Amino acid sequence: MHRSPYALDFCNAREQFLSGRDTPRAYLERCISTIMAREAEVHAFVTLGLDRARAAADASTERYRAGKPLSAVDGMPIGVKDIMDTADLPTQMGNSIFKGWQPRWDAACVHALRSGGAIVVGKTVTTAFAGGETNETRNPLDTRRTPGGSSSGSAAAVGAGMVPAALGTQTQGSTLRPASFCGAFGFKPTHGALTMQGVHPISLTHDHLGVIAASLEDTWCVASRIALAAGSPGSPGLDGAGFTLPPARRPRRLIVQLTKAWETEVDTATHAAFDGLLERLRKREVELVTRRDDARYAELEDAFFGPFIERSIDINSYEMRWPYEQYVESRGAELEKRQHTRVARAREMTPEYYAELLVEKAAMKEKARVALGEADAVLTLSASGPAPVGHSHTGSRAYLLFATFLQLPAISLPLLQSDGMPVGVQLIGHAHRDGDLCALANWLQGVQER
Amino acid sequence: MHRSPYALDFCNAREQFLSGRDTPRAYLERCISTIMAREAEVHAFVTLGLDRARAAADASTERYRAGKPLSAVDGMPIGVKDIMDTADLPTQMGNSIFKGWQPRWDAACVHALRSGGAIVVGKTVTTAFAGGETNETRNPLDTRRTPGGSSSGSAAAVGAGMVPAALGTQTQGSTLRPASFCGAFGFKPTHGALTMQGVHPISLTHDHLGVIAASLEDTWCVASRIALAAGSPGSPGLDGAGFTLPPARRPRRLIVQLTKAWETEVDTATHAAFDGLLERLRKREVELVTRRDDARYAELEDAFFGPFIERSIDINSYEMRWPYEQYVESRGAELEKRQHTRVARAREMTPEYYAELLVEKAAMKEKARVALGEADAVLTLSASGPAPVGHSHTGSRAYLLFATFLQLPAISLPLLQSDGMPVGVQLIGHAHRDGDLCALANWLQGVQER
Repeated sequence: MHRSPYALDFCNAREQFLSGRDTPRAYLERCISTIMAREAEVHAFVTLGLDRARAAADASTERYRAGKPLSAVDGMPIGVKDIMDTADLPTQMGNSIFKGWQPRWDAACVHALRSGGAIVVGKTVTTAFAGGETNETRNPLDTRRTPGGSSSGSAAAVGAGMVPAALGTQTQGSTLRPASFCGAFGFKPTHGALTMQGVHPISLTHDHLGVIAASLEDTWCVASRIALAAGSPGSPGLDGAGFTLPPARRPRRLIVQLTKAWETEVDTATHAAFDGLLERLRKREVELVTRRDDARYAELEDAFFGPFIERSIDINSYEMRWPYEQYVESRGAELEKRQHTRVARAREMTPEYYAELLVEKAAMKEKARVALGEADAVLTLSASGPAPVGHSHTGSRAYLLFATFLQLPAISLPLLQSDGMPVGVQLIGHAHRDGDLCALANWLQGVQER
Repeated sequence: MHRSPYALDFCNAREQFLSGRDTPRAYLERCISTIMAREAEVHAFVTLGLDRARAAADASTERYRAGKPLSAVDGMPIGVKDIMDTADLPTQMGNSIFKGWQPRWDAACVHALRSGGAIVVGKTVTTAFAGGETNETRNPLDTRRTPGGSSSGSAAAVGAGMVPAALGTQTQGSTLRPASFCGAFGFKPTHGALTMQGVHPISLTHDHLGVIAASLEDTWCVASRIALAAGSPGSPGLDGAGFTLPPARRPRRLIVQLTKAWETEVDTATHAAFDGLLERLRKREVELVTRRDDARYAELEDAFFGPFIERSIDINSYEMRWPYEQYVESRGAELEKRQHTRVARAREMTPEYYAELLVEKAAMKEKARVALGEADAVLTLSASGPAPVGHSHTGSRAYLLFATFLQLPAISLPLLQSDGMPVGVQLIGHAHRDGDLCALANWLQGVQER
């Protein structure tokens, strides 16, 4: 079992619950101890629900004693990003407009986890509406650094060992970037594979539910539980969903995506670490293809990292009209400049222009399908280096937009280091082949033994 | 200008607002007088917001005086189905679970209309969660009869002349059926053309926003305003959206859909009325094609009206898991049997089976695209006859499922009569050609002069 060296994994503990050497309540208390020790400096949580969490852990303990756990996530303490509705804890969207707001029902993802016995420890800090600029959370590995955003609290809680898993969302880079910065695993399945019902939207065709966790196995268990117990309207769901990690599969060919950020943003130590990984892959006889070797992929990259990105952000803006236009109209002073700009842009756009963008996006997805072709996956960084020092921004999105805008599944593994901090390796897979991507990730984590 | 003989149209009044011979406030007062006169027996509204409506009408009156109306719906009193969020009126879903529930923001459709100057008069009665069995609303044309469901209050309010237009939804037949029964126009655009954001869901791939109104022109204005001011994430939107009705276009060829219900459900007078319409169309040299003339269409009809319908209802059930599973678990005694049955069915289904259903549905949509081929539209009834006497059920869905499950645009026109009551004629168009369908409907209403 591989796990983040920083985090507290759950899947091994579950085996102890079954054998009676550990209990969900004792496990939760260890989480709570870490929260008590670190929360004052990390600020991962907006609200905690520890009494209810303890009661839920006791009930789970009883189920394991009776040999009848509800699912593979029974007894798992989780953090829930504070844009996801929870019936027993306020849901405040990281913005004063929703201060004290108490939903009556759980979001679909939250309900699916709870009905499998998972324990909601608290709501994790998000930047404003998962699209804002920065917030109070600090990187648990070095509090001078950003934890990344927008799922800042979820990544920090996992990276600090406060919980083994937490839910995030990704509209541009909000799951994989903070996972990379905080030394956790991050998983953003194919768009739509996990339902967003009951989660505050930014942009429906860009919003992805994501999981941040201490191990690949924990990540997969959480995603699978949501897929199996909630369903996702209009989507075939999470390919391969199940409670055991897909067995490691060695890739035959990987496309290595460097992009311009490799020269302009990435630091020397991250260069060296990533090059070292490539070297180990070559030794394992994985064919590594770059844009120099593959004209079709090069063409895709050029097309994607051109005006397409700006036009994708137009899609984003157009889809924000509801409900952000109402927020701007009635509570505009409480919003950040970005939300004002996006709503103003949405008002300028015509449905015809938006329809053109959708056609263009479909064409780009088809181009990507063809260009990925025979390759097993795209291999790249999850961020252009370790978490930046400072709290004025949440880091570069250079390596995140590709998988998000093309709606492809992506996994970040905390396999590299730079400046004493983790840097994630990102594997991007074929649409609707999430289980296969996870099998490749399972193999990849074995290559990089520490 | 054609309009329902039962209802109060708006588009003509707007011309008087512009010329100064009438005002939005005076128009609203006429609506309120009708509400006061009829509501005690019709029960179209759950809640009324008359003070705010009057203030909004006064503001609209000022805008017309200044020659600056906000849009073609400025000053239009509307009813809003009580599953659509309204920031100033409770939204109670036709069920005690939501008794007194007050949302903080308007649904996207409501906001789009209000921002164009439309006036929300009140929330209209819905059956429970737009999927329930019956309710307190009565047919305004004959209170012994059902108004149809689930948009019962919206259709009754329009049919009674209480408002010129009201919003509905259609997951099976919930907009066109009550429109037909209450003598109103009904329009269910292509799936996704109008956004459902902020509307309580049943089944996302089946739920359609719909408009019920006193004239085709009013129907089109309302739908267009929503399309233009809200957008619809992931959809090219409402084809042809604009504030003038698409000019009448004579169809060259119509497919006449009778189905088995023609023999088993439809009454003699409805038979005669529909046959009379066909006769008038033949005189106007419209080619009428039936299943006997067109093997490809016959095959589609057989495939659709077979096990496909039951399998579509499985799609429906699967997509109801959230949030209905939570309602069943915590407030089950307040739900109808149907919701329990659907949730139980959802729990039995696997994601693999659901994925198969989606594939089958896509194939059926493609089959329909091919079979509709060169025809301009499908012509059929909107209901198998006039509103049934009694209040134990809301009528047959025999003529409604085709357009809904295939996500095709459909318009109901109150052109026929049977037993002294209206019966709607339904035109079903090609996907994403809503404007063209409206042009055909515009022509069709001229054929049937009364």
